[in-house]
Amino acid sequence: MSQYVKGLRCRECGAESEIAAVHVCETCFGPLEVEYDYAAIKQVFTRELIESRPRNIWRYRELLPITGEPKIGLYSGYTPLVRADRLAAALGVDELYVKDDSVNHPTFSYKDRVVSVAISKAIELGFDTVSCASTGNLANSVSAHAARAGLNCYIFIPDNLEQGKVIGSTIYGPRAVAINGNYDDVNRLCTEIADKYGWAFVNINFRPYYTEGAKTYGFEIAEQLGWKLPQHVVVPTAGGTILPKVAKAFSELTDLGLVTGHAKIHSAQAAGCAPVITAMHKHTDLITPVKPNTIAKSIAIGNPADGYYVLKAVRESGGWGESVTDQEIVDGIKLLART
Amino acid sequence: MSQYVKGLRCRECGAESEIAAVHVCETCFGPLEVEYDYAAIKQVFTRELIESRPRNIWRYRELLPITGEPKIGLYSGYTPLVRADRLAAALGVDELYVKDDSVNHPTFSYKDRVVSVAISKAIELGFDTVSCASTGNLANSVSAHAARAGLNCYIFIPDNLEQGKVIGSTIYGPRAVAINGNYDDVNRLCTEIADKYGWAFVNINFRPYYTEGAKTYGFEIAEQLGWKLPQHVVVPTAGGTILPKVAKAFSELTDLGLVTGHAKIHSAQAAGCAPVITAMHKHTDLITPVKPNTIAKSIAIGNPADGYYVLKAVRESGGWGESVTDQEIVDGIKLLART
Repeated sequence: MSQYVKGLRCRECGAESEIAAVHVCETCFGPLEVEYDYAAIKQVFTRELIESRPRNIWRYRELLPITGEPKIGLYSGYTPLVRADRLAAALGVDELYVKDDSVNHPTFSYKDRVVSVAISKAIELGFDTVSCASTGNLANSVSAHAARAGLNCYIFIPDNLEQGKVIGSTIYGPRAVAINGNYDDVNRLCTEIADKYGWAFVNINFRPYYTEGAKTYGFEIAEQLGWKLPQHVVVPTAGGTILPKVAKAFSELTDLGLVTGHAKIHSAQAAGCAPVITAMHKHTDLITPVKPNTIAKSIAIGNPADGYYVLKAVRESGGWGESVTDQEIVDGIKLLART
Repeated sequence: MSQYVKGLRCRECGAESEIAAVHVCETCFGPLEVEYDYAAIKQVFTRELIESRPRNIWRYRELLPITGEPKIGLYSGYTPLVRADRLAAALGVDELYVKDDSVNHPTFSYKDRVVSVAISKAIELGFDTVSCASTGNLANSVSAHAARAGLNCYIFIPDNLEQGKVIGSTIYGPRAVAINGNYDDVNRLCTEIADKYGWAFVNINFRPYYTEGAKTYGFEIAEQLGWKLPQHVVVPTAGGTILPKVAKAFSELTDLGLVTGHAKIHSAQAAGCAPVITAMHKHTDLITPVKPNTIAKSIAIGNPADGYYVLKAVRESGGWGESVTDQEIVDGIKLLART
């Protein structure tokens, strides 16, 4: 067990369990989360230590659930936080930054953060096969990191996936399994396979470790702003993995005395798939699933697994949320590009 | 004039001229190159100074042809030099690295390096309009950097360019001018326009500054290897901009006492477009233009402007060159991805 990882704890009932390839509480079926020994971390985890390390996700390793030297993800993370003065002027704000994870290594998306952590943990726990259910970015990232680490890799995809997307993953040499069904069908099947074959499914039985990788967004933003939290941060919401982990990152840095300031955290969804924003505007905790209908396909998850935790984190921070139409999304892309 | 830039000098006849938007020698029509005051640079340009700066191309600013604080390119360069142990094992070498400029910011190619330098110089010299002839990556990068800097931008493209490529550039808001002709026709027209309208064409009248940006590849490789030159470096050759500038970068760092070691520099071309390799293997300086026929379209330049300087740099370093068939390219892509 890691020097700083105490174990897993259920977010709902608080029951504790040992570090293993599990993601739901045996008592109440709530989601499990990694628990750290913050008192011990506080003794060693300083700005100076962090700044002395290579610019990748592992510079924050005491707050990530791995033991020893990381083997992969050595070039993932620490993407530019781009100051966008012309966009700020167009929007009428003083200071504005855009976190550009499109230049994340090696597969150009935030998935390289979470997959790096999940696969590092899988290696640590002795797994030789990694896997995921995916329709795109996640399969790319899992396949690429597995290739680098020399692990067996299975990706499960819907059988109607476009050829271009399939090639983007299969070039790395995983076994691709096409399932006659939609993404939800694939996901359900994978949950059974994870139990049966003992493989490391990054976003299923390794989900507690996987999601911790999303905290690196928050760590980096704070460090890149000179160890200050931003006044506001806007995080798009799909399944709800990222936003609560950005909140957790800010909270951890604050508790460890590494940052100043308070950030209001805001959620954004496409109007054609906005179950979290709808619940927020109705001031309810009950998220009603929707059938997605938007061009923003990467964030079009009608039944977000961590939607409740998005609502909670937004409210606790004093933030808010809004949905935008497809036309507003297109206009936003153009405005961003032109400024 | 910059503190460290002495002026321009013809690579052929040695005639000197002042810093301006010119790229060919008035005396002999040879290419102009930036001259630096290396004695003055040696006084200030230390490893410590470089390492204390943000990780972008400007950390080497004394060896780049700009004056004062750079306004753009603040997130360009310093891309990962990825240690590839599994690829090394497959190829039977001890230590191997891949420079991943596919995660360059903002437009995912090395063009962000050279365009950052050219447009910074254009701003410094008072130009309000930047431009280029291009069929892809260059137009993307010029359009993106012009948008960031708030400059007018014209991109000149062949009128049969695929819509996807056109959108990749025009999203940034340049004026796109489609020319009834091939890339060579577009390029010739742009040379005339540069003279007539007084615009900054990054790869024509700003070519001496633009190409200096390619040195940052060499600077970064040396620094990322711990201020040691690699034993061998392989650089793909298209128009021949990069390889001689990597050689220049290594030479400058050596002369300034910042690095140890000697690098043999090797050129690689697609067999379907290998005019430089053909000349190298014939031990001649005469490069015979070819009609490209390869899937490696981004490096398929049949008449490379700086081909002669590639030959010269390779020979002076003790390097060599080879061409590879399209099948070998495909096999190489797969091998890289799978390891």
